[in-house]
Amino acid sequence: MKKVVITGGDGFLGSHLVEALLETEVEITVCDRFRNDTSRFLEPYRDRIRMCSGDIRQGDWLGDALAGADAFYHLIWSGNPALTWTSPLFEVDSNLQTTVSVFERAAEQGVKKLIFPSSAGALYQPTCGLIDEGAGVRPSTPYGIAKLAAEEFLGYFSKRFPVSVDIYRISSLYGPRQPVGRKQGVVAEWCHSIAESQTIRFFGQGKTVRDYVHVDDAARLMTTSVKDLESSQLFNLGSGQGLSLGELLDIFESQISMPFQVVREARRECDAQEIVLDNQRLLSKNTSFKFRAIEDEIESVFQFYSANGK
Amino acid sequence: MKKVVITGGDGFLGSHLVEALLETEVEITVCDRFRNDTSRFLEPYRDRIRMCSGDIRQGDWLGDALAGADAFYHLIWSGNPALTWTSPLFEVDSNLQTTVSVFERAAEQGVKKLIFPSSAGALYQPTCGLIDEGAGVRPSTPYGIAKLAAEEFLGYFSKRFPVSVDIYRISSLYGPRQPVGRKQGVVAEWCHSIAESQTIRFFGQGKTVRDYVHVDDAARLMTTSVKDLESSQLFNLGSGQGLSLGELLDIFESQISMPFQVVREARRECDAQEIVLDNQRLLSKNTSFKFRAIEDEIESVFQFYSANGK
Repeated sequence: MKKVVITGGDGFLGSHLVEALLETEVEITVCDRFRNDTSRFLEPYRDRIRMCSGDIRQGDWLGDALAGADAFYHLIWSGNPALTWTSPLFEVDSNLQTTVSVFERAAEQGVKKLIFPSSAGALYQPTCGLIDEGAGVRPSTPYGIAKLAAEEFLGYFSKRFPVSVDIYRISSLYGPRQPVGRKQGVVAEWCHSIAESQTIRFFGQGKTVRDYVHVDDAARLMTTSVKDLESSQLFNLGSGQGLSLGELLDIFESQISMPFQVVREARRECDAQEIVLDNQRLLSKNTSFKFRAIEDEIESVFQFYSANGK
Repeated sequence: MKKVVITGGDGFLGSHLVEALLETEVEITVCDRFRNDTSRFLEPYRDRIRMCSGDIRQGDWLGDALAGADAFYHLIWSGNPALTWTSPLFEVDSNLQTTVSVFERAAEQGVKKLIFPSSAGALYQPTCGLIDEGAGVRPSTPYGIAKLAAEEFLGYFSKRFPVSVDIYRISSLYGPRQPVGRKQGVVAEWCHSIAESQTIRFFGQGKTVRDYVHVDDAARLMTTSVKDLESSQLFNLGSGQGLSLGELLDIFESQISMPFQVVREARRECDAQEIVLDNQRLLSKNTSFKFRAIEDEIESVFQFYSANGK
């Protein structure tokens, strides 16, 4: 049975990835910081996964967890684009340094495939029409610059070591368990605000277009990497459908019965205008895959934030 | 009078840059590690420049040196492509971290222009014909990945701060004062080996083509940045002339009277096949500039290594 190790497996994307992998025939080790030995999202699966707790920057416990692993998803990346605008050294010292360090360690230990979640929004230039993997990248934020450098270090590891590398350039994730208060996902922020009876914040003119993909869709597509441990691929991971902020607001207004107020704010500097992904490369490996429609999902995501608070 | 600060100003490129700047009307501060308060190459100019000694990673002395500066050349970058192949963390922790840190510091202090020496050989893909600044970049070594990330952080600083940024993607430098024993420059290595009566090392089939530019030409062209502190530019800095390793060996055999032996070795993994730069953007700002011909220079470079040893 293939052995899969996931850092950040108790996070937003990570916990959905664990759930998606549980539907495949793999042995799962989750590395994260578990408070009081308790996970936030994985308790229902405790007897089906191995859980290792610690700070990946300290000690050698990650090396132990990686022993004999076939595939290694490294999902830990602190902060987010909006908040690191004035902290380039944090991206270098903390995120890039850690990412290069743990992937090098994994490759040295003979892990067969390294898998990295990159960011389409932070790397691609906004444009009209679909963006494929061959499009030029031009990160403009410290977050994006560090994500791209991490991608390049993975390419380098694939030349230096006998290791395959999959990179997923993920579009705008939404779904339950996304952290709020960090300006990371507009769907989560809005759901949380409405649940708390606060106004929701609407940036710019509502014309900013994003490719929203449900986190469970993203997680299931990311299991593609485990099927074939030999190949190395760069994948766009998005729904291929653009949705403007104004259209998203329309969906909220039609799907959520609780009334809410909207406050309009200036566009944030770090927001690119239109980013919609060409996802054909990834779908060619998942020919029967059907994406969830966001208009069918908003209500259940809202229920998560109503029930769980922040 | 414009104030210019240079880190690494006592190095190979740096000391030539200081000499080139001395021919312009600027006030020069050199920041480097001076042993026993003595520079290696700048003693003849001691009364015409300000010298600050220290480790730029420690203490606040660099901030003091930067006070009131108009232009800041940061030339310190440890190691080289050949030796960092197995040390990606060194490039991240040491070089990239330091570069981002000192440029951020300079921008915060109100320096008007930041200038960074990047590497054409480490960034561009080998190709036939001239490579212009719009060509795609694809670094494959830790050194190149970190250089590209540094370029991108500079672009980010130019958006975050009211600062201009010039980047020079420099081709293969040669000339006196280049360090030997670090596999950095083939001309220096060969001159040193011949001066020491050792065999010279010839990599591959001799078909690898490089764009050799004399360090003094490069230094004088890099003074372009001080003329106009408002503009931000990415410049290729090369002669625009390709020379194969075999042709370089021919020049050595015809120009150097001392006999020498050649030992042939396998091509190094980090060597791209053919890189010759389109330098029109930079030459359009220096219309009367004439490059030194390498066949006229090898003998005098050899004299440097004969006289100075390592």
